[in-house]
Parts: sequence; structure tokens; C-alpha cells
Amino acid sequence: MTPGTRRTITGFSNPTVKALRALRDKKHRKREGRFLAEGLRLLTDARECGRLPETLVMATGRDPHPLLDALEADVLAAGGDVIETGVDILSKITGKDNPQAVAGVFAEFDTTLERIDRSAAPIWLVAQALRDPGNLGTMLRTADAVGAGGLILIDDCADPFSVEAVRASMGAVFTQAIAQARWDDFIAWLCGGPGSEQGGQLVAASLRDAVPYRGAAYAAPCFLLVGNESRGLPEEYEMACDLRVTMPMRGRADSLNAAVAGAVLAYEVLACLDPQ
Amino acid sequence: MTPGTRRTITGFSNPTVKALRALRDKKHRKREGRFLAEGLRLLTDARECGRLPETLVMATGRDPHPLLDALEADVLAAGGDVIETGVDILSKITGKDNPQAVAGVFAEFDTTLERIDRSAAPIWLVAQALRDPGNLGTMLRTADAVGAGGLILIDDCADPFSVEAVRASMGAVFTQAIAQARWDDFIAWLCGGPGSEQGGQLVAASLRDAVPYRGAAYAAPCFLLVGNESRGLPEEYEMACDLRVTMPMRGRADSLNAAVAGAVLAYEVLACLDPQ
Repeated sequence: MTPGTRRTITGFSNPTVKALRALRDKKHRKREGRFLAEGLRLLTDARECGRLPETLVMATGRDPHPLLDALEADVLAAGGDVIETGVDILSKITGKDNPQAVAGVFAEFDTTLERIDRSAAPIWLVAQALRDPGNLGTMLRTADAVGAGGLILIDDCADPFSVEAVRASMGAVFTQAIAQARWDDFIAWLCGGPGSEQGGQLVAASLRDAVPYRGAAYAAPCFLLVGNESRGLPEEYEMACDLRVTMPMRGRADSLNAAVAGAVLAYEVLACLDPQ
Repeated sequence: MTPGTRRTITGFSNPTVKALRALRDKKHRKREGRFLAEGLRLLTDARECGRLPETLVMATGRDPHPLLDALEADVLAAGGDVIETGVDILSKITGKDNPQAVAGVFAEFDTTLERIDRSAAPIWLVAQALRDPGNLGTMLRTADAVGAGGLILIDDCADPFSVEAVRASMGAVFTQAIAQARWDDFIAWLCGGPGSEQGGQLVAASLRDAVPYRGAAYAAPCFLLVGNESRGLPEEYEMACDLRVTMPMRGRADSLNAAVAGAVLAYEVLACLDPQ
């Protein structure tokens, strides 16, 4: 493999700066099949999961760090590019006032359902029409924390490769499997269509015909389904679930933030399936 | 009391539109002592909690609704103003592409610690240096759901009256008590300085010298302390707690989103203190 190149960019109007900045826009991101991730910690997580950025962008005048040196060496060895530029330009690229000293451009992953190995973990999170990229990233972060296998996105969800989702995931976008599917395809896959071997328990956070979430009869692999932020789950989706569970609502509200509901449920499932 | 007035505004450059729009800016909000809340549901929650907007802004061409009529009548009877304006202007005021059909301007509440009646609820959430208004609003929403009394904000937190926090709270900004305090003042209040009668158990989500969060010895009134999004809690704050609890971290990450950590903990405390 040809080693990558190293260069310095000083101008805001440099076409590379424009191309990197454009990755904050979904349409452009999909056309390029690339996304941005920021921060040494995130990029190190990615590297340790076998994901290297194609392009590494570093701030001039940054503090030296052995992990950054290692990352740079790996990127160059893999044929990637390393760009040094000013903090002001990095700020423009990432859209943050106080940008991290380093950012990377990654190729988007394959997010087909067929890539999911359900036997790899006892818990999987499933989100339906989740619109907020911060909620999506937070669910990835929670999935990592409970030792889930990944996050399956049903119907029209926010883009898991948006800057906001990647940021909120705190690196879990690299550690968790991510799949995107239509409901019918997901159900066919889950229930044993071609390519399915073990099935799985589909659990909905629900108010309809539901049992208390605490100590419910969870079974691995358990797929926890959370609905859209304002509409919740369609009734037919809830009714297709193996188990509907409900959380106490002691106040005026009748629902939780979607990422919060998923997390409370995921920790309960973890405690039931894997008490330690 | 003199009944309020009703008027229509059609111009973007109208000074009232500018003044309302400026409430999205913290400095202006603090100077005015006013904040914005959007949506019929939120405003109805507020009304049922005895909070009426001083000014009610409604979109022309909105769908009629009995709750909106009731709100309008109450606002006028209380001497408040009712403004009708176009959806485009409402969008400019709230900063949302698809604005709700109604918004209100409220006087900020008194957020001194002395207003908190700790005997009113078994659970209280406490956040230290929480910077993200979305996280803050989400914690208010969770506090409502678990039947907590309110949210106490320690040190330099996001503004609970920002548009983002109010929106994420889904109305809980009106149902939950909110206090803002420095750490030393909070500890003095909690431990029985003047004005304190019952004390309370301070519990930290922590990795240091902590017991498993599941089934820990929680006691009411239980104050659940969650730290800053990136730095967590200062060690001395953790050490001042009566109980430090830790949640399983099965992945690469060593922490959860602050609002998620607070919610998982709050639901565990609810299950322990008040099983049903």
C-alpha cells in the first residue's frame, strides 16, 4: 500500500476545507459515503476497533500526545492523508466554537441487517423513527454501556453518521453494530426468514396491555424497541412485540425521553439477564 | 384586575416580535426575568399548575381547540396580553421551522433553595455544572416521571429557562420545583443549617469507592447527584455524599450521558423506596 501524504492547509477557501465542512450536511454525506468524527478519544476508540480515518485533520499548535502520534502513524501507513490546519479552520469544519484538536473522516459502514450477528450479545436496542440525532447517539452510548450488540434503526430515523449523533455516541458509533431497515424486513429477519437462525424476543416500551418493566420475563437475545419522540410506536408495531412493558409514570407526563426510556429498560434487562 | 388586551401583529420588525425573539438569548432573558414556552400541551400543563403566561402568542389560521380557548380566556382575565400573528413570525420568535401554534411568555420563578420543601417528595434530582440545556430539560422530565420533587442545580449549570431546556422538559419545568445554589450553600441546607428540618440522603453516581446501584440502601428524601457531562463530579463532592453507587459498564465507555445516568438511578431508587 502506498503511504499517505501529509500537508498543511492555511486558507478557509481551500477546497479540502469546503469538502470536509460539507460532510456536516446529510445529502453531501450520503453522496460521499463519508462522515466526520472529532476528538482524540473517539478516534482512538475507532482505531482500537479497527477503524482508521481516511483523512486525519489535526490542529497546529496542539499538545503532543502519544496516542495522537500512534494514530497519525497508522493513518499514514494505511495510505490515508494527514492534514494540519489552524484551530479556526478546524472550528469551521466541525461547527464547534472550541473544536477538539483532531478530527477524522471515515467511510460510512455497511448498515444492512444481514451484518448483524444476534448471537454476539444478549441485548439489542431498536429505535423506530427516532428523529433526534442526539437521542440516537445517546442510545448508542447506552448500548455500549450495557454490553449490547448494537442499535437497529427502523423506518425513517436520524442519520447515525451525523456530527451530532457521532458526538453524542462518545465513540460507540465505532463499537456498536448499526443497522437500518424497514419494519417488515426487520420482522422477517427477526422471526426467521432466510438468514435468521435463532429468532429473538421483541420487547416494547408501551402503555398498552403491558406488564411492569421491573423483573419482566426477558429472554436473550432481547430486542428493546423504542418509538418516535413525539408519536411513540405505531400500535401495530407494539402488538407485534413478544412482550410489552411499562415504566411507572408518577407525574403529569405519560412518557419519557426516548433515549432515557431505552436506557432504563436496557439496565433492567441487563440486571435480569445477567445479574452480578 | 384590568383585563388584558388582544391585538394582531403582522410585521417582522414589530418591536414586540423583536422583544419576544430576544428571549432566546440568555442575557436578555435574565434582564427581563421572562422566558418562552411553546405548545398547547405545555401551556395547558402550566395553567393546570397555576402558571399563566403574561403574554400569549397564537398563530393566525390555527385549528380551534377548547383548551386554547380556555387558556386565552384565563390570560385575558388575569390581565395578560394576547397576540395573534402569522406562523412565519411565530417561527422567527421560537427559532423553529415548524413552530407550535401557540407560545407564551412567563415570568421566571424564584429558584432559591429556601423554596424547596424536601418533605414533599421521596426523590430529588441534583445536577452539578450540567452544561447542556437538553440534558437539563430531560432531567426535569424524568423527575416528573418518577414523582420527584424537583431539580436542584449546583454551580454553573445551563439555564433551566432556555428555550431548549423548557422544550426538552415537556412541561416539567412547570410541575417540578427548580432551585439554583452553590455547593457550599446546598450542603449547608441539606445537612441542617437554618431552615433545614429533616436532612436528606445525598447519593452520587460514581466510580470511586461505590456500591452497586441495584438495591443499594436508599433512604427518603433521597437526593441523586449527577455531575458535569465531560468531567463528572469533583472528587470532594463525591466524598461528601452519604452513598456512592455505580452502574455496570460493560463496554468500552466508562460513563453514561448525564441525563441517562440520572434516570437509571432515579428509577432504581423509585423501585427500592416505593415498590408497587
